[in-house]
Amino acid sequence: MLGAFSGEGVWLIGRISEKLMMRKMFLGCAESCTGGLASALCTNVPGSSRWFRGAVVAYDNAVKTRLLKVDESLLAANGAVSGPVVEAMAKGALEALDAHVTLAVSGIAGPDGGSPDKPVGTVWIATALRYTGRAPGEPQMVRTAAFSRVFPGDRNDVRFGAALEALGAVEAALDGPGD
Amino acid sequence: MLGAFSGEGVWLIGRISEKLMMRKMFLGCAESCTGGLASALCTNVPGSSRWFRGAVVAYDNAVKTRLLKVDESLLAANGAVSGPVVEAMAKGALEALDAHVTLAVSGIAGPDGGSPDKPVGTVWIATALRYTGRAPGEPQMVRTAAFSRVFPGDRNDVRFGAALEALGAVEAALDGPGD
Repeated sequence: MLGAFSGEGVWLIGRISEKLMMRKMFLGCAESCTGGLASALCTNVPGSSRWFRGAVVAYDNAVKTRLLKVDESLLAANGAVSGPVVEAMAKGALEALDAHVTLAVSGIAGPDGGSPDKPVGTVWIATALRYTGRAPGEPQMVRTAAFSRVFPGDRNDVRFGAALEALGAVEAALDGPGD
Repeated sequence: MLGAFSGEGVWLIGRISEKLMMRKMFLGCAESCTGGLASALCTNVPGSSRWFRGAVVAYDNAVKTRLLKVDESLLAANGAVSGPVVEAMAKGALEALDAHVTLAVSGIAGPDGGSPDKPVGTVWIATALRYTGRAPGEPQMVRTAAFSRVFPGDRNDVRFGAALEALGAVEAALDGPGD
């Protein structure tokens, strides 16, 4: 999966970066289980400073609340690996990084930490996108999307798989309806 | 250099994590040119949540000022790739991530962006470490260190080389005098 730094990942990021630059948009990342991998894949591409703002690697829940403004009650009610939390992380990253579109990832990379409800490999992914409606004077809005997947393989497979999936979700968000 | 995810890097991070856990300390990263690589290398190790707090990938200068509290005047006077700025990033990350020790990296990964003064491959690295003096009642202090290196090779070599060098500097900081 280290090939993500040279193969599939590079093509995907090439497509994303073209869409971002065409629309003068900047990407930001909020990463928990991927621990900076999505960000490292983005910045691996020369010239990424033209479309990549930065990332918050919120490995510890305190970083999720402090820098990404995720409510502690949301974490307590849903757990860090959940739809509501990754949506909140993605929205928080829009603000914290002053980005136009963000990805957020939180999951159980293993080998430990799994449970019957959330086995090792479970990853929640969200995107958040700022957009303006077509009507004149319409305010800027934020569209979010979240989904989960269970990735097979070892810790490395889960982390690289989740980082690429989250970047794929960014491409889908940029291709989505609305603006 | 992708071998950093399995060879040299894993050994280095194994040694750092033992030192951190023995002293109940947490590491945080402030990354510019490495773009999350140092953080991704740390979190590649199972159980890293016991000693790794998170990271701010401050690719854009606005993220350096906003999340890491680097003074704009410091950036204007010295440039982002400089000793004063990486020291400020490392200190800012101590606060932002509530960490005990941090690394900061800012450099010119290339292929563009070099100048006669700061050729491609130039990287500034800093560490910041909280410590308490031996005298009773002595307040907590912060020790910083910064240095630069010019890494040979392509963008990938510079980024992985800088990430490993910065992690090596964390080990040196933990081995250093004072506490």
